[in-house]
Amino acid sequence: MMGSALCVPLTDRGHTVRLIGTPLDGALVSAVAGEQPHPALRVRLPALSSCHPVSELEAACVDADAIVIGVSSAGIAWAASALAPVLARRPRPLLMLSKGLEPDAPRGHPPRGLRVLTEAFRLALPGELAAQTWPVAVCGPCIAGELVRRTPTMVVFTGQDLGVARRFADWLETSYYRVVLQADVVGTQVCAALKNAYAMGIGFGAGLHQRVGGERGSVAMHNYEAAVFAQALVEMQELVLSQGGGAATALGLAGSGDLTVTCNGGRTGRFGALLGMGHATREAIRLMQGATLECLEVLGVLERFLVAAQHLDRRRLPLLSHLIDVGLHGAPVDVPFQEFFRA
Amino acid sequence: MMGSALCVPLTDRGHTVRLIGTPLDGALVSAVAGEQPHPALRVRLPALSSCHPVSELEAACVDADAIVIGVSSAGIAWAASALAPVLARRPRPLLMLSKGLEPDAPRGHPPRGLRVLTEAFRLALPGELAAQTWPVAVCGPCIAGELVRRTPTMVVFTGQDLGVARRFADWLETSYYRVVLQADVVGTQVCAALKNAYAMGIGFGAGLHQRVGGERGSVAMHNYEAAVFAQALVEMQELVLSQGGGAATALGLAGSGDLTVTCNGGRTGRFGALLGMGHATREAIRLMQGATLECLEVLGVLERFLVAAQHLDRRRLPLLSHLIDVGLHGAPVDVPFQEFFRA
Repeated sequence: MMGSALCVPLTDRGHTVRLIGTPLDGALVSAVAGEQPHPALRVRLPALSSCHPVSELEAACVDADAIVIGVSSAGIAWAASALAPVLARRPRPLLMLSKGLEPDAPRGHPPRGLRVLTEAFRLALPGELAAQTWPVAVCGPCIAGELVRRTPTMVVFTGQDLGVARRFADWLETSYYRVVLQADVVGTQVCAALKNAYAMGIGFGAGLHQRVGGERGSVAMHNYEAAVFAQALVEMQELVLSQGGGAATALGLAGSGDLTVTCNGGRTGRFGALLGMGHATREAIRLMQGATLECLEVLGVLERFLVAAQHLDRRRLPLLSHLIDVGLHGAPVDVPFQEFFRA
Repeated sequence: MMGSALCVPLTDRGHTVRLIGTPLDGALVSAVAGEQPHPALRVRLPALSSCHPVSELEAACVDADAIVIGVSSAGIAWAASALAPVLARRPRPLLMLSKGLEPDAPRGHPPRGLRVLTEAFRLALPGELAAQTWPVAVCGPCIAGELVRRTPTMVVFTGQDLGVARRFADWLETSYYRVVLQADVVGTQVCAALKNAYAMGIGFGAGLHQRVGGERGSVAMHNYEAAVFAQALVEMQELVLSQGGGAATALGLAGSGDLTVTCNGGRTGRFGALLGMGHATREAIRLMQGATLECLEVLGVLERFLVAAQHLDRRRLPLLSHLIDVGLHGAPVDVPFQEFFRA
């Protein structure tokens, strides 16, 4: 969705844009190539230069000046192997829309830290390519359905090579799509991934309110949501610092901005609300009808990390611990407010 | 409203509670004394020990162990003069629910800084009393209508004398009303006041969306709101630091928590939405039908402060500058996103 949405500022800026599907995007490619509405965004994309199935990926990339990657976090390894031949021919600036985290050790081995996706992509490339590829990550609050409608949006570009980030900003910025450059590569991407986990917890409030017959309005469970929100930001900062990121990052666009937009816009909040209503975790997953639940993926990574991370005091992360218990182990929702803000 | 709502945890904890109206609360006192629903909260308060008109203030306070002050910021001077005889008889622990700021100089003189309301109340007392009175402030996300319904709520108590703050927490805490103690007296109260100003700006998004015929939903102006939200927190931190407060305060309950609940629950967000819809400021004020607009009061204080504050770089506060232009000088809404996150 975000890759498709980014076609709007790209075409508005006059670039030649070739949209290429992944192996999962057959229906999307057919719709867009046939000038039908985008199946998920429900609007017609602007006239692109071309739209290609995955079989045409190498040919469509051959003379591209830059490549934008919009796969989900689970698709990073696939994207690296699919793009390796393209990059081997000629290195190109890469922009990544994916959000997520990985443990920095293979399954079965204790991770020493969290790996951000720009680094995961880079390390999934063959050695010579990895040494010369520094992808730029897009973070910050951006609902794809709003960007595609040219609603005012501000995002963060970050990467080891800020010169490349600046070039992407020069290529992409419009009056409605504004870019802030951020040097904190790790902190920015850690926030972008964590917000999904924490938005699930903020969603509990809406479900608890509905459970007791409450209606939407100014008197609901907003005090509860606000306490969870503030604790989420405090824990985000803690986790960012533990990975060597900056203290200010959780406060800004990638932290507080992305957390608030995720609560307003997305699947994760709805999933949290189902849990708050008292549905068992399995049942809530079923009710989401196959929607990708990034919150559970990132909670799985964080659980592995926390088990191994000796230096991190888990008592400083009571909300995250509860989210892991609920999301991964089926514990009932019972937010441990008494443990909040004790640091 | 908040003073009345606090009667709920107070009575649940078994305290003898005497609710005393201000000179503006005649109708409220009659309703509560007659066991009718509270006119603003629209629920019946729990059975209080007694309810008094302002004429009975001194008599009703005579043997009180502690006093809770729930006046608006405009009523601080009145409250100090009304309570001075009570405190002169015997100093008592004071808890203040008021939120706001004052310039630290009389009208017509350039202020050197912002004065928080615990300090404003203290300085409004006669000299000997001022030297021995250290009020405790309640900050953080708390919609009165939710507290009165015993919805889970977490607040911050702060004061020069944290021992008094701790006593109030011991007297007041229940399973649904939890208290965090905060040593940052200035920063916590600066955040509590600023959130009203900034919530007005976040409200613009809902109005802009409505103006173009948009409906409430996950695709609206949430990207816009999120960018304003994040910039608001960054500017809050800047202002807190300028007054000697702590760097972490804006991230926590009094900052991010109170900002998010104010956007969900209150008048300020509705007022901001009217401005976002394109109503002129005067017309928006009229449409609010006499509701107290704390946002305009605090913007007035901040404008006076910013004019005098030589040490503060206003380019680091582009959102606040725009809110002053819109709220106090009738400028049209046109959020300066291009100036955000440039610090």
